[in-house]
Amino acid sequence: AAHDLVEPLHPADIADLLELLERDERRELAAAIADLVSSDVIAELNDYVRDDMMEALPPGAVAAIAEQLETDDAVQLIEDLEPAEQRAVLDALDAEDRAAIESALAYPEETAGRLMSRDFVAVPEHMTVGDLIDFLREEGNLANDFWEIFVVDHAHHPVGTCMLSWILRTPRSVALTDVMKRDQTLIPVTMDQEEVALMFQKYALISAAVVDASGRLVGQMTVDDVVHIISEEAGEDVLLLSGAGEGDINEPIRDAYTARVRWLIANLGTALVASFIIAMFGAAIEELVALAVLMPIVASIGGNAGTQTMAVTVRAIAINQLTRANTGRILWREMRVALLNGATVALVLGAATAAIFGPPLGAVIAAAMVVNVAVAGLAGVLVPVMFERLRQDPAVASSVFVTMITDSIGFLAFLGLAVASGVAG
Amino acid sequence: AAHDLVEPLHPADIADLLELLERDERRELAAAIADLVSSDVIAELNDYVRDDMMEALPPGAVAAIAEQLETDDAVQLIEDLEPAEQRAVLDALDAEDRAAIESALAYPEETAGRLMSRDFVAVPEHMTVGDLIDFLREEGNLANDFWEIFVVDHAHHPVGTCMLSWILRTPRSVALTDVMKRDQTLIPVTMDQEEVALMFQKYALISAAVVDASGRLVGQMTVDDVVHIISEEAGEDVLLLSGAGEGDINEPIRDAYTARVRWLIANLGTALVASFIIAMFGAAIEELVALAVLMPIVASIGGNAGTQTMAVTVRAIAINQLTRANTGRILWREMRVALLNGATVALVLGAATAAIFGPPLGAVIAAAMVVNVAVAGLAGVLVPVMFERLRQDPAVASSVFVTMITDSIGFLAFLGLAVASGVAG
Ligand SMILES: [Mg+2]
Ligand SMILES: [Mg+2]
Ligand SMILES: [Mg+2]
Ligand SMILES: [Mg+2]
Ligand SMILES: [Mg+2]
Ligand SMILES: [Mg+2]
Ligand SMILES: [Mg+2]
Ligand SMILES: [Mg+2]
Ligand SMILES: [Mg+2]
Ligand SMILES: [Mg+2]
Ligand SMILES: [Mg+2]
Ligand SMILES: [Mg+2]
Ligand SMILES: [Mg+2]
Repeated sequence: AAHDLVEPLHPADIADLLELLERDERRELAAAIADLVSSDVIAELNDYVRDDMMEALPPGAVAAIAEQLETDDAVQLIEDLEPAEQRAVLDALDAEDRAAIESALAYPEETAGRLMSRDFVAVPEHMTVGDLIDFLREEGNLANDFWEIFVVDHAHHPVGTCMLSWILRTPRSVALTDVMKRDQTLIPVTMDQEEVALMFQKYALISAAVVDASGRLVGQMTVDDVVHIISEEAGEDVLLLSGAGEGDINEPIRDAYTARVRWLIANLGTALVASFIIAMFGAAIEELVALAVLMPIVASIGGNAGTQTMAVTVRAIAINQLTRANTGRILWREMRVALLNGATVALVLGAATAAIFGPPLGAVIAAAMVVNVAVAGLAGVLVPVMFERLRQDPAVASSVFVTMITDSIGFLAFLGLAVASGVAG
Repeated sequence: AAHDLVEPLHPADIADLLELLERDERRELAAAIADLVSSDVIAELNDYVRDDMMEALPPGAVAAIAEQLETDDAVQLIEDLEPAEQRAVLDALDAEDRAAIESALAYPEETAGRLMSRDFVAVPEHMTVGDLIDFLREEGNLANDFWEIFVVDHAHHPVGTCMLSWILRTPRSVALTDVMKRDQTLIPVTMDQEEVALMFQKYALISAAVVDASGRLVGQMTVDDVVHIISEEAGEDVLLLSGAGEGDINEPIRDAYTARVRWLIANLGTALVASFIIAMFGAAIEELVALAVLMPIVASIGGNAGTQTMAVTVRAIAINQLTRANTGRILWREMRVALLNGATVALVLGAATAAIFGPPLGAVIAAAMVVNVAVAGLAGVLVPVMFERLRQDPAVASSVFVTMITDSIGFLAFLGLAVASGVAG
């Protein structure tokens, strides 16, 4: 029954279905529809789910799946296996596939060399359009799906790219070199996937040649793989900023726990800084307990304002919109927004506090609010920019620092001004 | 001098350069390199920057640029103009372009009908591969860049899609209907861009047919446009969750202010709830000021844990990984992570507090911590899921609610347990 329902589905939908289930149910379903769980389905699976399913299979079976996949998908299947299991699977592959996969594994994760496809169409520069069409019709050993042809010189250096639509619209007698585009975006094997994704977006690429250190064409990146990278890279910042690590709902609980608890412990450390500041004003709080009632408001809104600015900054850095050339301008822009925001909130909060606790405390909390929102604006830009200049991912640790700053300054400004102005203490 | 430096750049790079500058400098540069600011450059500009530049031009000049663009890019140029200016530009267009743009503007923003391209290649089903190649070579009025051919029946309903590589690899005599893929992903004109983006990712599409309510082929979406949508949709959640609105660094300050201040005011409201709770325990705080020193820690770490879970949930909803079928499983998963996290933090914080303030207060804060992190896990899943079920974007308002809950429960659990256990009050 399950089999009949699943049969008409696209491999990507079968993969989604398997992802929805819990591990035990998933293995049961996978056994019941074994003939429908094709290599295409396995290539579409979430990393964690796929790894879990591969662990249940002997190396020979994993190798058999890998052999049916394109190299880039086979690499994804194999890269996350335990070293011993990975070795066993590699040994079970035929020599050609093994060589291709080992060459990919030699490049670091998330680089073009690891991610590129090795099935591309490259032809010599002396061909005409007619020669090319004849070659494509006669050559048996070509990928079925491709969108561009790379033209290479005798040293296998790319000299141009030809979209298939240009070839189809040109008479047979025209030389390929007169149809191809010479200006092309070449991707070095070592380029990080984030950079690759930005290039595809910026130059509206469908595929691009990957070249090794000597400039030889060794692979291609295609947009159908790049869309996943774009989604992953753009989506991971919300997870990183919150301290949720990979944040995948299929991540084993143990991994989710270790990824998250370390940020909570870091947050504990920074919360202690705020507590020390409060402790310095213990006498003032004993005298005027309203201070304890109101102080979290100043910290909380400062934290929120800091998070807003930080999110804007981190996103702008991620899409290459914030560079050294305009950091000053963005900082000044954010400061103006912060002053407007701080003044507005201060007015509302100050008036309400004045009405309940009297004008002096209203003035104190309004002033503290302006100070803290301004500091939040400053920290929201400068903390991520500083991480970026230190070549650290600004999404990873900015939150902890910005929150520490807005909490501490919030308590310090409010309690300090209350004491300094003689409202308390 | 500027002219010589800019001349060799790709239009997308010239656009980036203009975006880096402040408004006045930008207008100066644009004037100095006017001949290089082609319609391609303008199509690549950030929305805000482009609108700003278009405002400086008379309607006739904007119309002249629009006429050089493909319809989808012309629509982006025109859609954000003031109504009167938009009317003037439309009137200055030639009849054919005006009709195409008005038809796009009739669809809501961010739907396929608004975003689709009207330049696509569609051919009747009786053709052979050879007929098609002859048609493509001879027909003058075709787009230059395309990747797939749509095959349509006599009523202009799509019956199949043909990748150009399949055409190039097939003998001329074969019927198109034997080459094309019949199973295709059709996009209704009303589909939201977020859904379009997910379909392109899921089915690895390069282009897809857009059909109207009667199933007629009216346009196509192509992956080079979809990559921008993917990036925008995946990137906006980090901005929305933080309450930063569009979060574009080129957004006018006035708009950034109004987008953000409303969330700060909302946050002020929720912070008041927490303050009321603290105020209920004023006597206990007066008696034991350590409570005021420690209470922000419980709230802060609870907030952080809630944000982690919320980010994971929002992201899972955005990529269609969290559905009704697995909400229960995810909730249970997050609760287990929360209990592990809560127990770990409680142990560290409880021990430190016990050492400084004595074991009773250590026990109270540890218990409050476990409660608050567990509640954070619950709220982090349930709040976004609730918004999703109410058909609201879970990224927009979840933060405010989750923070309110973790702040309030943090103070309530800690102060309440302190009083109930007789440690204070
Ligand atoms: Mg999937
Ligand atoms: Mg093989
Ligand atoms: Mg992997
Ligand atoms: Mg691939
Ligand atoms: Mg990355
Ligand atoms: Mg990553
Ligand atoms: Mg990143
Ligand atoms: Mg750009
Ligand atoms: Mg025209
Ligand atoms: Mg727009
Ligand atoms: Mg387009
Ligand atoms: Mg959206
Ligand atoms: Mg969204």
